Amino acid sequence: MTRPLVSIVMGSSNDWEIMQQAARALQDFGVTFDARVISAHRSPDLLFDYIKDMSAQGVQFFIAGAGGAAHLAGVIAGKTALPVLGVPIPSKYLKGMDSLLSIVQMPKGIPVATFAIGEAGAANAGLFAVSMLALNDKALAQKLADYRKKQAEQIAATTLPTLS
Amino acid sequence: MTRPLVSIVMGSSNDWEIMQQAARALQDFGVTFDARVISAHRSPDLLFDYIKDMSAQGVQFFIAGAGGAAHLAGVIAGKTALPVLGVPIPSKYLKGMDSLLSIVQMPKGIPVATFAIGEAGAANAGLFAVSMLALNDKALAQKLADYRKKQAEQIAATTLPTLS
Amino acid sequence: MTRPLVSIVMGSSNDWEIMQQAARALQDFGVTFDARVISAHRSPDLLFDYIKDMSAQGVQFFIAGAGGAAHLAGVIAGKTALPVLGVPIPSKYLKGMDSLLSIVQMPKGIPVATFAIGEAGAANAGLFAVSMLALNDKALAQKLADYRKKQAEQIAATTLPTLS
Amino acid sequence: MTRPLVSIVMGSSNDWEIMQQAARALQDFGVTFDARVISAHRSPDLLFDYIKDMSAQGVQFFIAGAGGAAHLAGVIAGKTALPVLGVPIPSKYLKGMDSLLSIVQMPKGIPVATFAIGEAGAANAGLFAVSMLALNDKALAQKLADYRKKQAEQIAATTLPTLS
Amino acid sequence: MTRPLVSIVMGSSNDWEIMQQAARALQDFGVTFDARVISAHRSPDLLFDYIKDMSAQGVQFFIAGAGGAAHLAGVIAGKTALPVLGVPIPSKYLKGMDSLLSIVQMPKGIPVATFAIGEAGAANAGLFAVSMLALNDKALAQKLADYRKKQAEQIAATTLPTLS
Amino acid sequence: MTRPLVSIVMGSSNDWEIMQQAARALQDFGVTFDARVISAHRSPDLLFDYIKDMSAQGVQFFIAGAGGAAHLAGVIAGKTALPVLGVPIPSKYLKGMDSLLSIVQMPKGIPVATFAIGEAGAANAGLFAVSMLALNDKALAQKLADYRKKQAEQIAATTLPTLS
Amino acid sequence: MTRPLVSIVMGSSNDWEIMQQAARALQDFGVTFDARVISAHRSPDLLFDYIKDMSAQGVQFFIAGAGGAAHLAGVIAGKTALPVLGVPIPSKYLKGMDSLLSIVQMPKGIPVATFAIGEAGAANAGLFAVSMLALNDKALAQKLADYRKKQAEQIAATTLPTLS
Amino acid sequence: MTRPLVSIVMGSSNDWEIMQQAARALQDFGVTFDARVISAHRSPDLLFDYIKDMSAQGVQFFIAGAGGAAHLAGVIAGKTALPVLGVPIPSKYLKGMDSLLSIVQMPKGIPVATFAIGEAGAANAGLFAVSMLALNDKALAQKLADYRKKQAEQIAATTLPTLS
Repeated sequence: MTRPLVSIVMGSSNDWEIMQQAARALQDFGVTFDARVISAHRSPDLLFDYIKDMSAQGVQFFIAGAGGAAHLAGVIAGKTALPVLGVPIPSKYLKGMDSLLSIVQMPKGIPVATFAIGEAGAANAGLFAVSMLALNDKALAQKLADYRKKQAEQIAATTLPTLS
Repeated sequence: MTRPLVSIVMGSSNDWEIMQQAARALQDFGVTFDARVISAHRSPDLLFDYIKDMSAQGVQFFIAGAGGAAHLAGVIAGKTALPVLGVPIPSKYLKGMDSLLSIVQMPKGIPVATFAIGEAGAANAGLFAVSMLALNDKALAQKLADYRKKQAEQIAATTLPTLS
Repeated sequence: MTRPLVSIVMGSSNDWEIMQQAARALQDFGVTFDARVISAHRSPDLLFDYIKDMSAQGVQFFIAGAGGAAHLAGVIAGKTALPVLGVPIPSKYLKGMDSLLSIVQMPKGIPVATFAIGEAGAANAGLFAVSMLALNDKALAQKLADYRKKQAEQIAATTLPTLS
Repeated sequence: MTRPLVSIVMGSSNDWEIMQQAARALQDFGVTFDARVISAHRSPDLLFDYIKDMSAQGVQFFIAGAGGAAHLAGVIAGKTALPVLGVPIPSKYLKGMDSLLSIVQMPKGIPVATFAIGEAGAANAGLFAVSMLALNDKALAQKLADYRKKQAEQIAATTLPTLS
Repeated sequence: MTRPLVSIVMGSSNDWEIMQQAARALQDFGVTFDARVISAHRSPDLLFDYIKDMSAQGVQFFIAGAGGAAHLAGVIAGKTALPVLGVPIPSKYLKGMDSLLSIVQMPKGIPVATFAIGEAGAANAGLFAVSMLALNDKALAQKLADYRKKQAEQIAATTLPTLS
Repeated sequence: MTRPLVSIVMGSSNDWEIMQQAARALQDFGVTFDARVISAHRSPDLLFDYIKDMSAQGVQFFIAGAGGAAHLAGVIAGKTALPVLGVPIPSKYLKGMDSLLSIVQMPKGIPVATFAIGEAGAANAGLFAVSMLALNDKALAQKLADYRKKQAEQIAATTLPTLS
Repeated sequence: MTRPLVSIVMGSSNDWEIMQQAARALQDFGVTFDARVISAHRSPDLLFDYIKDMSAQGVQFFIAGAGGAAHLAGVIAGKTALPVLGVPIPSKYLKGMDSLLSIVQMPKGIPVATFAIGEAGAANAGLFAVSMLALNDKALAQKLADYRKKQAEQIAATTLPTLS
Repeated sequence: MTRPLVSIVMGSSNDWEIMQQAARALQDFGVTFDARVISAHRSPDLLFDYIKDMSAQGVQFFIAGAGGAAHLAGVIAGKTALPVLGVPIPSKYLKGMDSLLSIVQMPKGIPVATFAIGEAGAANAGLFAVSMLALNDKALAQKLADYRKKQAEQIAATTLPTLS
């Protein structure tokens, strides 16, 4: 793969089911990315090496997905000044409410841009990265506008079944 | 004021107490901005005109703060493909939990980057906008790095009172 | 279909499983309606055209169902002074608590009449529309009284199995 | 007072601080109303007599405000087929989350149109009643349109202080 | 059946799956009871007649189970000064948190003794009625003591499987 | 004081501000009681001695108030088969939601009759004890009926201020 | 089994599915333990005897798992000054939020070290006990370091499937 | 100060109001400690240096207090295998519910022993550290037993005011 513009990190391989939505959104727009499983808690040193490595490779955004006491996005944001996007992974018992609060409630000074719990949030983190890249890439901006237009057209074309 | 790079919108003038933190963060980094009170519910037409106007002026990001059934950020995101940052304003009774869920739980396709409830979230939305602009502005990137460094130094210099 | 008295809008075709309860309630009382999938976020322009069109056709109420950051009802209420009824669709992870707060916590000035999360709420939105129409339609008022009476009789006739 | 079109009931005289917002909204639009303190739990017989009396006087809507285990709106809705609007009063410890769920989560068959917790909800219940009456009263519809327009104009005229 | 000492009421026949636990607890202790489906909202008149009838028959306690906006226990408690026990039925989306708050948060003056959400709560409402009757019935008190002792013995005899 | 019929226990002397409402309700009806501060956690042996002592003195009910991880009522219920009433004391940060769940969610086999968070719950626990004693005390039953009637009359006599 | 260093107690045999994770963690590190089902509510005397017995045998920590109104850990902590670790068992309807608050919100003076809801919490309670024992056991400390290292290596070796 | 046995870390100097309770508990038992403000997000490098330094000095436990997206305890636990105790600091709007979930919901493999939100939790983290040290220090164990005894005696000596 060519040099990645976005790095997708997740705390566990189970999170891939959700986080691939971010990857897919980037892929659909032709944005290169790297995707890795790295735990902020279980492999912090690997995480720091990875952040340094990605920064050196010119990554522009990090998308981090984690569940429960979800510190991954916040820890990355503490180590780099690049924009960090957080995706709350639904947790087994609290359904991601814990993940959401652990990601979004960051203290003043270290922002994490947070998206919805689960699939929608992962896809939207990808789309948000696209929208940021589109600010300086007219072709991408056009692609995004087309995507948005097609999305609206699909809704306009939706019909409901008649009531039995 | 010169042409704004960021637009800060809020649902009510009461929200300024919180949202000025976003303005201040931008101002501290020399990022131009426009700040307006426009309600998604009470003045939707004004909002659409304003979005069009700001886009024409070359605004790159919207920061939207609202409380309760906080639709402002989502409605803006539905009308523009530019990145939209959402700040949950603490509500009188539910303390912003309603605002947070109304902003962050966006459906797949229309992302809103969400930050913490209240002052920290507003400041961080501003800082996040700075970090995005810094991707293509080395001087700003340096300023941001300095800010981060100074922040760390202030913490390192903090001493606690002795126990009585 | 003859001119609709009620418009039922929902954010996604998946919401039909819930929202058909509203349609069915109206149909059972012979109240004409239009049912459409239109997203406040993904197809805002379509939504505004639709609101204008329905108003021109003489629709008297809107019933809007949406999930998550559920802005549909609030956005409609911002564009028309006709009564708007909101139905919180259960969301995948937070089970509609996000939808409920996003719909019910509207600011002063723009009311949305909100009903229960899910099927019961959809059916009740339909019945509430019937009760409003019944204020000026004696035959409908009688039908509603009959429905209520039959409902009470069914409960009176319910028997429980004996304990094994 | 002339015959009331709307009845405002609340569970305790303490609720008046909130519920007068509903009264004020009606008064501003020249809609006649009756306002009473009646508890569904502490004075159920009085409540039933009152519902019968109001219905006989031609009341068209009930607006009921209550806090905690807030049964008032639901109990009224069980006794009359007229539209019932519910306002969750903020409770001392749970801040109205209990009131909201007690009012909005009605079972299929007996709708209660629910509004936001507290002042905004009370005012909006009044405005919603106005919007229903406006369906058959062109002068009132015009007044409501004027109110909405003025509301939008006030927002358009709002300016923010400059940052110090 | 001989004259009932306890009346078990529930809002819907679906609640029987839970509420039969209360019936079973009473039956196991030889306490007579009546069990009925009566909705506070859909059949209020039937409910009032039933309360009067049961009181006349000498019922000493009411056990009421309901879900969602669960007003049944509170409404009964408003119509009789006999002790009323409430059981929150798990609701489809909010899992009984709405039911619990709707039952337990009664205002000063009208108590409802509330038990756990679901099966445990229903069984315990039955056992609590037994414990009240046991205050004036030595044989029943002995039976309850035996039940408690047996319960402790069963736990003492529980063994865990060995780890594989 | 003559032999107590009810024992009121609370986890801390701070809880008296709330729990005196239970005492006052009993006193108003001439029901004798004992009131003590005993912590289930900090003084468990004292608690067990006290339970034994009270039972020997013929106490018929325990009313237990505690906050946070509120185990007091459950622990008493585990040591006696007498009816135990639980009052959730509002906690400093979670406002009694923790206390409520810690008291009400008892497992099958050991019931605790739970009342509302705070003052209303304490008063109602006292009134509920009165209602149980009234089952075998006609004079008390009459007093309770009078109290309920007076309560309804007070509400009937309540008037609201006119709107300015 | 040789003398246990850790005692694992749980309120019901159903909890073993979760609590065996604690046992397994201890077993993997060669730490001896005793595992028992004892309910704080249903068998309090057995619990007190067991605590005394375990203390006499030289147990150093208690790990207690319970659900709902989860008093087990707190009650043990009230009877012994040894460290007590609490594991919130997921409850049927509230998914362990009740268990968590019942365990963690202990009053000043009687600590319970609380871990995550469910499997992760049980395993971590075991690992935490290991970390405490490792303070005075170099071999165990080495084992723990190896475990942590291996855990990090497994993550480093994880690869994600390619997007289809 | 002599070499510290416990390190107390907190995310902000504002947290000292709460965290001094931990310090005070240690001081009362003569346990040496170091107390520092270090943010996991704003000064991560300082944090890692500090953890290394403290470990080298022979610290046996870390007590970490943080609010909101409270990652401090989890990040420390990821960098050391020493026992880490977490204290949820009450946050401005969500009152520490966010802090609690961010600290307690750690994934399997990296435990953080969590205590109550606020003052009680901070004091109990200190007392828990004492109880762990007491396992290998008979004098300390005696001191702890005395503290517990005195605590029980104080409760036994508490008297309530008489009702007016």
